[in-house]
Amino acid sequence: MGDWFEVRDYDAAGRIGELTVPRADVTVETPALLPVVNPHVRTVEPARMESEFGAEILITNGYILYGSEDARESALSDGLHDLYDFSGAIMTDSGSFQLSEYGEIDVDTREILDFQRDIGSDIGTPVDIPTPPDVSREQAADELATTQERLELAAEVETGEMLVNAPVQGSTYPDLRERAARDAYGTDLDVFPVGAMVPLLNDYRFADVVDMVAAAKRGLGADAPVHLFGAGHPMMFALAVAMGCDLFDSAAYALYARDDRYLTVRGTEHLEDLEYFPCECPICASHTPDELESCGDADRERLLAEHNLHVTFGEIRRIKQAIRQGNLLELVEARARGHPTMLDGYRALGDHAEQLEATDPATKDAFFYLSGESAARPEVLRHHQRLERLDADGEILLTEGDTNEAYDESWRVVPPFGPFPRDLSEVYPLNAEVPERLDERAYARAADGVARLAEANPDVDFTLGHTGWPARALDRVPADVDTYELGVDDAFGDPEDDADETA
Amino acid sequence: MGDWFEVRDYDAAGRIGELTVPRADVTVETPALLPVVNPHVRTVEPARMESEFGAEILITNGYILYGSEDARESALSDGLHDLYDFSGAIMTDSGSFQLSEYGEIDVDTREILDFQRDIGSDIGTPVDIPTPPDVSREQAADELATTQERLELAAEVETGEMLVNAPVQGSTYPDLRERAARDAYGTDLDVFPVGAMVPLLNDYRFADVVDMVAAAKRGLGADAPVHLFGAGHPMMFALAVAMGCDLFDSAAYALYARDDRYLTVRGTEHLEDLEYFPCECPICASHTPDELESCGDADRERLLAEHNLHVTFGEIRRIKQAIRQGNLLELVEARARGHPTMLDGYRALGDHAEQLEATDPATKDAFFYLSGESAARPEVLRHHQRLERLDADGEILLTEGDTNEAYDESWRVVPPFGPFPRDLSEVYPLNAEVPERLDERAYARAADGVARLAEANPDVDFTLGHTGWPARALDRVPADVDTYELGVDDAFGDPEDDADETA
Ligand SMILES: [Mg+2]
Ligand SMILES: [Mg+2]
Ligand SMILES: [Zn+2]
Ligand SMILES: [Zn+2]
Repeated sequence: MGDWFEVRDYDAAGRIGELTVPRADVTVETPALLPVVNPHVRTVEPARMESEFGAEILITNGYILYGSEDARESALSDGLHDLYDFSGAIMTDSGSFQLSEYGEIDVDTREILDFQRDIGSDIGTPVDIPTPPDVSREQAADELATTQERLELAAEVETGEMLVNAPVQGSTYPDLRERAARDAYGTDLDVFPVGAMVPLLNDYRFADVVDMVAAAKRGLGADAPVHLFGAGHPMMFALAVAMGCDLFDSAAYALYARDDRYLTVRGTEHLEDLEYFPCECPICASHTPDELESCGDADRERLLAEHNLHVTFGEIRRIKQAIRQGNLLELVEARARGHPTMLDGYRALGDHAEQLEATDPATKDAFFYLSGESAARPEVLRHHQRLERLDADGEILLTEGDTNEAYDESWRVVPPFGPFPRDLSEVYPLNAEVPERLDERAYARAADGVARLAEANPDVDFTLGHTGWPARALDRVPADVDTYELGVDDAFGDPEDDADETA
Repeated sequence: MGDWFEVRDYDAAGRIGELTVPRADVTVETPALLPVVNPHVRTVEPARMESEFGAEILITNGYILYGSEDARESALSDGLHDLYDFSGAIMTDSGSFQLSEYGEIDVDTREILDFQRDIGSDIGTPVDIPTPPDVSREQAADELATTQERLELAAEVETGEMLVNAPVQGSTYPDLRERAARDAYGTDLDVFPVGAMVPLLNDYRFADVVDMVAAAKRGLGADAPVHLFGAGHPMMFALAVAMGCDLFDSAAYALYARDDRYLTVRGTEHLEDLEYFPCECPICASHTPDELESCGDADRERLLAEHNLHVTFGEIRRIKQAIRQGNLLELVEARARGHPTMLDGYRALGDHAEQLEATDPATKDAFFYLSGESAARPEVLRHHQRLERLDADGEILLTEGDTNEAYDESWRVVPPFGPFPRDLSEVYPLNAEVPERLDERAYARAADGVARLAEANPDVDFTLGHTGWPARALDRVPADVDTYELGVDDAFGDPEDDADETA
């Protein structure tokens, strides 16, 4: 693997990167969306994708080109870039998807890679085995071994400047996915599609998608560009980027348009169910659903495809902007409310906080607490890890209220983080914006922070002054930490004032 | 009040309605956004708002027209519709906002209403007293008495076909807001702005906004069109509509543009902080932030204002579509993740579930459980109320698992709803889509449902079979309901099978 990918900016495990594609002599900024161009049906011309939608890279199916005599000849004689009138990067697929759908294809890795090179592909793909979810471990491991052989063979093929994909398989076994990724990364190949995700995506199994991406990422170096292969619905881009995916491909923009389906960042709508367009794009700002309904089939399909592309590229821009501003997880919070399975996906992301923490920037503009799930963010974990290393001595009040001179020190307490010395109050993420109405998870995590601090400092006398935490959170505070409720049973306050406050 | 407003569709307390504006001879579909047109500065021409953005109604300041000699004369001679080249409805304000900002204005209600009628306003406004938040109760009540006098005076003024606003004041006292609304509704006036919200909106006090709107709504009939006066940020439209607001006005689109501020449904951005436009609108799809930065001031301001209008009108369309599809609260779920104070607002909405339940449709497409806050939705409350009226006899198993013939009946249990007879499984909202990873609030509410059913049927023997509910939820189940964990301690299962399942 060459020096083709550089990360410019991180947020959680999401990143803005630059993928240098030497054969096309272009640099693609990631996260990037690759529209799928069907060699036989061009709903939106590739040249328009480039000029009007900002596409820097597209993907087309090398196997279909190979299998169709006319297409093959013109691809070989003119080259893909002329055939499609597209000056960006062009990735080609190998037919593995056809293999997974139809069970066989009649081409081998060397042959299809040679062909992809010969038609001018910038990023080619060997024939891997896309093992479906939930198969036996034996099948997954056997097919993975074959895939790895193919990758090693591909690394031997003379592909010139063409980059080559190294798909990561392993079905729904995280350890196999991790090993597959490590082995793929160990070859000389360049781009790492997480493969066979389509069945999971079709079934809205977003928690499984998150777990499989997390596993693959553990096996890959930071300089590995990761393609969530077959993922083209904008509702899950932010979640997938936050887990570390860099490339997406969309056939959906065109396939959905053919069926009068309309993409949004919150799901999919049927045109017939729309009375108003829930979108600001040029198509939706200048047409009503009724107008589209009464268009001819070809116009309607094209206009819906254009809307679908606008939403898809718009979400990629929104994600890039969020990474630059350090609020990608806030965007994921919103997207998690598109469907209960997206919430499952986001809750699964919380399980990987430690993995995300490794690349999450130390400082950002602001931390917004936006749901019980915010309590599982990597920043909270990092603060808890730091609590063990903070100097603490004497008698320390940990309080949601004011300082109290009866103690050697008065630290602040802010759910979901827990305690910290007051001079860290303006430091990210402790300068968080939190709602006034906190949920149990915020209190529970704050209590865990108190516990972590107390356990790391067995000789320090801690007292917790809280504003009425639920019993369940207080149960998580170690027994040797005294607790009292501010304004109710202040250990050192004036009892008569307290009586007023609680009247 | 005449028959000017009809509700077509409800979702929670949100509605699609038709406001007939007789003087303009138009019908405005609500929720509607009224762009504020400054008589002196037209960032986007009203005619373009009508043709390109779909504006059916706008608002302009009658007091500013009145106070400026040139503007007054042309308004009086040409009429507002010619002056602005706008064929929709035109609402005029009275100067109350100037009163609240500058402390005095030199016009009385009769004079300003006459003037508004004379310049051709379709909806005029008397001079009310916009009492700010957090004043003493005495001040709020005194000023409210004055406002009510003005409304009663306004109802006597000969305004012809012009509709007249009846602002609802009362500072941050819910009971005063409710009484103000009841008294305003009792006059002959037509449209009901909830007034003096700007200070709350500027401070992001969305929970207070929700509580004040809820209070005002309690005092108004269902046929009262409600205007959240001064609210123009699209981030909170869905929340406000769900509480029952029908009209919004936006000066923000233009004021923000002048300061290089950029509206989104998740908050406000400064142009200089944007590297990518997080938006699909015609402006953002065809420009980069850098291109806008390098425009001349006038072009940049106009383009930003157009973006701001696109987002604002797009969100109104999105809300209308959500009401038609019965998923407005799902949209509010997403919007609540824009800022911690929006989460406070949504959590406050949960406090008013009973009020929302009164108009929430009995059936919709699907209920999506999208956060701990979903447990507070009106549908859950309604199901709990129905539980008391369901027939129950003998020994009943309430179970998340299969039926069990050892019992007379086996009802299903689905968090957050709780128990129900199996033949209701496909009935809204019990056919809800819920995540696999449920939170404590879902279990707690389900347990409350069990409790409600058991308490209504003291002679029935209930047993609860659950899939590992947290202790805290089980604590809410009455002691006379037996509970067991499915697959662990099945009362009637085969102990050897169980041992396998939990191995
Ligand atoms: Mg090579
Ligand atoms: Mg009248
Ligand atoms: Zn659109
Ligand atoms: Zn825009």
